[in-house]
Parts: sequence; structure tokens; C-alpha cells
Amino acid sequence: MFRLDELVARLGGEVSGDAGVAVHRVATLDQAGEGDLAFVANRKYLPKLRESAASAVIVAPDAKALLNGRSAIVVADPYLYFARVAQLFNPLPVVRPGVHALAALASSVPSSAEIGPGASIEEDVEIGEGVVVGAGCHIGRGARIGRGTRLAARVTIQHGCVVGENCILHSGVVVGSDGFGFAREKDGRWVKIPQIGRVVVGNEVEIGANTTIDRGALDDTVIGDGCKLDNQIQIAHNVRIGENTAIAGCVGIAGSTTIGARCMIGGQAGIIGHLTICDDVVVSAGTLVSKSITRPGVYTASLPVQPHADWVRNFSHLRHLDALAGRVRSLENQ
Amino acid sequence: MFRLDELVARLGGEVSGDAGVAVHRVATLDQAGEGDLAFVANRKYLPKLRESAASAVIVAPDAKALLNGRSAIVVADPYLYFARVAQLFNPLPVVRPGVHALAALASSVPSSAEIGPGASIEEDVEIGEGVVVGAGCHIGRGARIGRGTRLAARVTIQHGCVVGENCILHSGVVVGSDGFGFAREKDGRWVKIPQIGRVVVGNEVEIGANTTIDRGALDDTVIGDGCKLDNQIQIAHNVRIGENTAIAGCVGIAGSTTIGARCMIGGQAGIIGHLTICDDVVVSAGTLVSKSITRPGVYTASLPVQPHADWVRNFSHLRHLDALAGRVRSLENQ
Amino acid sequence: MFRLDELVARLGGEVSGDAGVAVHRVATLDQAGEGDLAFVANRKYLPKLRESAASAVIVAPDAKALLNGRSAIVVADPYLYFARVAQLFNPLPVVRPGVHALAALASSVPSSAEIGPGASIEEDVEIGEGVVVGAGCHIGRGARIGRGTRLAARVTIQHGCVVGENCILHSGVVVGSDGFGFAREKDGRWVKIPQIGRVVVGNEVEIGANTTIDRGALDDTVIGDGCKLDNQIQIAHNVRIGENTAIAGCVGIAGSTTIGARCMIGGQAGIIGHLTICDDVVVSAGTLVSKSITRPGVYTASLPVQPHADWVRNFSHLRHLDALAGRVRSLENQ
Repeated sequence: MFRLDELVARLGGEVSGDAGVAVHRVATLDQAGEGDLAFVANRKYLPKLRESAASAVIVAPDAKALLNGRSAIVVADPYLYFARVAQLFNPLPVVRPGVHALAALASSVPSSAEIGPGASIEEDVEIGEGVVVGAGCHIGRGARIGRGTRLAARVTIQHGCVVGENCILHSGVVVGSDGFGFAREKDGRWVKIPQIGRVVVGNEVEIGANTTIDRGALDDTVIGDGCKLDNQIQIAHNVRIGENTAIAGCVGIAGSTTIGARCMIGGQAGIIGHLTICDDVVVSAGTLVSKSITRPGVYTASLPVQPHADWVRNFSHLRHLDALAGRVRSLENQ
Repeated sequence: MFRLDELVARLGGEVSGDAGVAVHRVATLDQAGEGDLAFVANRKYLPKLRESAASAVIVAPDAKALLNGRSAIVVADPYLYFARVAQLFNPLPVVRPGVHALAALASSVPSSAEIGPGASIEEDVEIGEGVVVGAGCHIGRGARIGRGTRLAARVTIQHGCVVGENCILHSGVVVGSDGFGFAREKDGRWVKIPQIGRVVVGNEVEIGANTTIDRGALDDTVIGDGCKLDNQIQIAHNVRIGENTAIAGCVGIAGSTTIGARCMIGGQAGIIGHLTICDDVVVSAGTLVSKSITRPGVYTASLPVQPHADWVRNFSHLRHLDALAGRVRSLENQ
Repeated sequence: MFRLDELVARLGGEVSGDAGVAVHRVATLDQAGEGDLAFVANRKYLPKLRESAASAVIVAPDAKALLNGRSAIVVADPYLYFARVAQLFNPLPVVRPGVHALAALASSVPSSAEIGPGASIEEDVEIGEGVVVGAGCHIGRGARIGRGTRLAARVTIQHGCVVGENCILHSGVVVGSDGFGFAREKDGRWVKIPQIGRVVVGNEVEIGANTTIDRGALDDTVIGDGCKLDNQIQIAHNVRIGENTAIAGCVGIAGSTTIGARCMIGGQAGIIGHLTICDDVVVSAGTLVSKSITRPGVYTASLPVQPHADWVRNFSHLRHLDALAGRVRSLENQ
């Protein structure tokens, strides 16, 4: 339970209306009721403001006129402020230090760490203070996990890999599986190339459920500080990702590609191997990036969805686009 | 072993030929032999009927003339009937009640439940009668699993989530991982928004291997009764899916999208966030849905595959389609 | 530590320069230093050869003139040779035979096998000599694992499935989950079709992290000898893949499709169900294959990525391609 003036004292912003209003939860405008603090992050939701039962709201300065006396915190970026308030109301679960009787440890861990049932930690592993290793996690020999990092249930960190501080890895994540490296014999058989690099994950990185990051072939695969990776992303060997880049679900990044800082990659996008993507690039959902990008900006390649019959009628021409262009040229030359 | 008249007594349909023929297995027309019951679900397989060694077949009324005296069960929907017979011949494995010595339980479970080795169940979890929790599963505090539901090995249900009755969750499924929610600071750093909603899965839902369903940010993520989800699907926070919708493998559904009842979403399709898809929509494989759909029907967006050289020749024009359209306009204006 | 003449004696090739130079590691041209053996697999990296600090290099005959006296092994295929040297320097980890106290075994295993903590092996399982079952793996009743095969941590092999010899399965792999098979009732409800086939994986197969392979509905799903599968691939029921086919990450293959030998399928490609792809087909990244392929060659279907504004301008015409073609026809008819 916080009063608006207490929130402002901690997090900044300015109170409009009754600064003594107390709130104990964040909620959407629709769902909010007595005691709830809602927010308007997007101007298109302003019409809902009037009907919301929220005790108070977080709004941008341009919404002040619409408050009608409702108590509010006025800030430049309501969504960012909402995130901070939500963290205040919903801190991470308290770490419960100790090693479960059904964990298998071949390395010592600090007494401040929480090691769940079924977790296995091989030799020469370094676990930082306050680390949480969830149920059924596996950490290979020689890996290092920085302090404050939390592994949800069933995370795998393979041998020699490094995860920084204050990271969150969700269930099913695999860090450090072998990269996909083979040389081909003349008869078509494949000869495995040992994958002897590591994965090095920076600090404050979050990795979504069932995302996989392969170890480097010779050098390392590197995920920069502050990167946020959603679920079911595949990152191949020797990829390097700059700081604070965010990648949405189901993205695949092929081997040896370098991605800059502060990029945003949309869901189901793909980036082929050996490319360089500069800083501050936005890739739209479903876009296959097949060449390097050297200028910041938004890049897109996707198709308009159509009723099936329209699609058949329109897209049958795609197989003959060169002929169509040739026919236009002929007409021009007449 | 069932005689055809016994099957018809249980499941309906009409026998053609010798009702006393006994069958003990379902099989394809190609593979069937003595004692096998095959089926013809699609008229294009009717020519195979003559050559099949099956002891009996399930056919639609229009195939009766082709039976040539072979015993058959005649029904309106042979494939549906085949499914029911196959269930009769292949019931789900018998539940073996009991808690394995290597399971870690912080909640009590009914004596009718089967809890495998390496499973961990946190505090305040409710497990229904006859539930199977496979080897290495993890169920977070406060979660609820309805009676008759089966979790294969290595399934994760995070804290507070709800799974209904008679569901089947395959290995590697993650229900209730954090949604991908961050607010951005001016310098590009991301501030995590706590994900405090739940995942609520209805009854009779099947979820394929390594599929992930994120918990809601503030409200819940909801999967309706009777939904069937294939492998490696990613469902983001606050998605809502209506009853009996079926989703094929590798589909990604972005945050806050609502999908109606009885939809069918093809493999590798993607649906971006904050959309509404109405009931009875079919999305073709590989299609990216980038706007809401308000009418039932089939929707498609995908490219014709071509030999590489043809693709280069035809698709080089896609970058200049606007210019090409302009040239056609010029010709028309002459 | 090997001298170049020792390497040539074991692996073939011809020494250029000082055959007594000793190397102890493979490295890239960029990273190589004293004692390292680098390689030039691609002519475009030849310019880097001059600057590399490598003690020796592996090159093709046409690079001999550029060696400037540096010691080298000259071979027809430097990349393949590099793979063999890398294997020599980096053998697979030694198997540590024994069963961990926290493993749950209902079948006997050979004394040469290594069974990790948290692994569970059900009844009637056959484990070959020298098999490694990593931490937290689950092997269902009646499954067979051939000698020399290694399962990384947290792999699932479901009941009755077969994995050949000398395979490597990475973390999170699921072999033998139920295929996605349902018949539909008139009211839209789905009736599960029991999936009673198996998965049969050949010898020398590698399967990447979090890849899923479903068991067959009636017959088996089959992965041929020597296939290499990357991470997060989904292979549906009754797919059959020929020998030595390589599949990159995030590919989805729908049910009952047959793929030939020595194919190469690019990342995020998709292949719809019930198709036949012949031997020696290459499918480009991101390509959806929607019809059978009967001739070897490279096949592609993907879009050129564009700056967002260009994409909007050019792709708005895709919805009207049929009209555009009609307008060209009208002009031609004038």
C-alpha cells in the first residue's frame, strides 16, 4: 500500500489531485477498481479514462485536462513509470537459500544461493551470491553464473559457459549446446566440427522459455548486457548481439551474424548467417533479413494476408513477374 | 479383438458383409493385413481399397459399390469413426498411482495420482484425481491441475497457473513463463514489467512438445476448452483462444491477440499482437496475419516456391513493383 | 601437440614448408597465434592469410603461392581437413561409466554406460555400450538406444522409440511425443487419434537443442543414418528423411512428408504435409515448400527485405497484382 505522494517521493513525477490516495496494485483501466493504480500509456486509450474505476491513474501531461478531478501521477512516460510502480508492488520472489536434498552438486555454492530439487551442478562451477538454480536445472562443468541471476525450472547451461549478474532465464532455456557445424565429404556424409567456443551472456539479460543459444565453434557466442530475448528464439554459433537489443519470440539468427545495440527484432523474423546489422535497427515481424543493414531504421519484408481466393488470383502472377515486366517494356517500346 | 457387429453396437454405423469378422488393430490400407481394420477417409485412396489385405474396412456410403464382398463398416465420416475405433484398441496407458521416491513434494496429492521420479511440486498446489505428473515435471506454488490430466516427462507449470481436466501436455511444455513485457528508458535500457497474470488452460486441451504459453502481464492468458496445440507453438501474454481451436506446429501468436472458437491455424503461421480473429477462421501454413479478421473463411499469404534462378528473375521485380505500376499507368494515360 | 608431418601421416595431405612445426590447437585466421593451426576454407579469406599469426595453415593447392614460406598442409578440401584435425585436438568427453545415485532405473544398463543424476529409465529399455544418458533425461518403456550414443542433459525419448548408434542428442530434444492427429466432430470438437507408431532414428545422427520429433500415427517416423538436425526443428508424425540430409534451425516439416537423401534445408524453411522431396534438393532459408519436388536443385521463395517505406509503397500492389496484369493485357489488346 502506497500513497501517491509516497510513490512520487520514490519514483518522481507530480501528483494531480489528492496526494493522499492509497493504492495497493497496478491494473489496466478496464480491470481497475478501488485501490488500484491504472495507467494510460497510449493516447488511444484516453477515452477509457472516464469510465475506469481506478483509484488513481498514471498519465502524460497532455491528459491532465481529462482527469476530471481524479487523482493522478503525471509523468512524461507513463508506461515506464508504470513498470517501476509494478516492480515496487511485485518484487521478485524472495530467495530461499539452501540446497535441496535431491540436488546433485559437484561444486560448492554460496550459502545465499537457492538450489532446487533435481538440479545438477557439475565440477568447477562458480555460482554467485543469491543465485537461484530452479528445479531440474543442469549446469555443466566450469560454467559461471553471476550473482543475483535466477534460473527457472529446467534450464540447461552447458560446460564452460558464462551467464552474467541479475539475469533471468526461463524454463527450457538451453545455453551452450553445440553449434551446427559440419564439413561435407564427397559422398555426402557429414564430419562434425567440434564446437569449442563458449556462450557468454552479459548482465541484466532475460532469456525466454525454450530459447536456445549455441556455443561458438572456435570463438564465443556473445549476448550483450541488457538484452531481452523472448521465447523459442534460436541463436546460432558465433552470433554477437549488442547491448539492450530486444528480440521477440520465434526469431532465428544464423551463425556468425553480428547484431548491434538497441535493435528490436520482431517475432518470427529470421536473420541469415555472416551478416552485420548496425545499431538501432528495427526488423518487422516475419521479416527474413538476407543482407547486412548499415543504416538505422525500420526494415520489412512480409506479405499482405488475403482471403484465399484473392491470394490465388493475385499470387499466381508472382511466378510470371519477369514476363509481365517484359510485356510492359514491349508496350513502352511500341 | 472386436467383431464388426460389436464395434457397430458400441460406436454406431452399419455392417456390410460378414458382421462376425474379428479385428484387433487399426492400420492403413497399405500396411493392413489379417485381423486389421483399415479405413478410407479420402476418396483418392479408394483405388487402394481393392489391393488392401485388411480383414475389414471403414468406408463412406459412396464406397459401398467398391467393396467386392469385403466386410466393412459403413459410416458417414470414416475418419472420425476410425479415431473412435483406434481409441478403443489403444486406450491411454493405465495410471500407476503412487509417488516416486525421487519426487519432491511440498503439497499433498491424491492417492490416485501418479507422480514420476524427479518431479517437483511446490507449496499450495492442487492436483486432481488420477492426474499423471511425469518424470522431471515441475509445478510451481499455487498451481492447479484438474482431474484426469496427464503431464508427460519434463513439463513445467509455473506458479498460480491453472490446467483443466483431461488435458494432455507433452514433454518440454512450459506454461506460465513470464510474458515479454518491458518499458524502455531513454538510453535504450529495458525495465521489466512484472508479469502477474496467470495462464488458464481449459478442459480437454492437448499441448504439444516444447510449446510455450506465457502468463499474462496483469490479466490472464486463456486457452479455451477443447483446444489442440501442436509442438513448438509460442503463445504470448494475454492471448485468449476460443474453444476447439486447433493450432499446428511452430505457430507464434503475439501478445493480447484474441482468437475465436473453432479456428484452424496452419503450421509456421504468425499472428501479430493486439488483433482479433473471429470464430471459424482458417489461416494457411506460413501466413503472417497482420490485421484483425472479422469474417469466417480461409486466409493466406505465402509465396510460390520456385527453382532458384526463376526466383531471382521474378522476384527482383518486387523491389520495383511501384515503378512498374507507375509505368502501366503512364501507358494507359498515353 | 602434433607436428605437421604427424598430422599428414594420420589424415593425408601434403606439407609445404617446415614439416616439424608443432601445433596444439585449431583457430580462425584472425584469432590464431603461436602454436595454432588455422585454415582457409574460402578464397575470400585468402587476403587475411598474410596477417595471421598462425604457426601453420591448412590451404587448398591454389593458395600455395600465397604462403610466403609459412608452413602449411595443402589439401583439396581444407574445411573437411580442418574438421578432422579439430576432432583430433578435441575428442568427445571421456565417458565416465556408472549410474548416479539420484537416477531412477527400471531397466538394467551396461556397466560401460554413464547415467547422470535425475535421469529416469523405464521398463524394458535397452541401452547400448558406452551410452551417455545426461542429467534429467527420461527414456520411456521399451525404447532402445544404440551403443556410443550420447544424450545431453534433459533429453526425452518416449516409449518404444529407437535411436541408433553414435548419435548425439542435445538438451531439450523430445523424440516420440504424440503426433498431431485428430478427427473433427460436426460441432467442432476434436477426437484424438492414438499415435501408436514409433520414431526410428538411424546411426550417426545429431539432433539439436529443443528439436521435437513426433511418433508416427500408425507407421513410424524415420530419420535416416547420418542426418544432422539443428535446434528447434519440428518434425511431424510419419515424416521420413533420407540419409545424410542436413536441416538448419527452426525448420518445420508437416506430417507424412518424405524427404530424400543428401538434402539441405535452410533455416526457418517449412515443408507442408504429404509431399515428396527427392534426393539432393537444397531449400533456401525461409522458404515454404508447398508442393513436391522431383528434380535435384536449389529452391527458393522469400522476399527481399526493404526499408519500411519502400516496402509499403511496393507491396501495396501485391493485393492488386491480378488487376495490374489485366491492365497490361488491355493495353496489349488495344
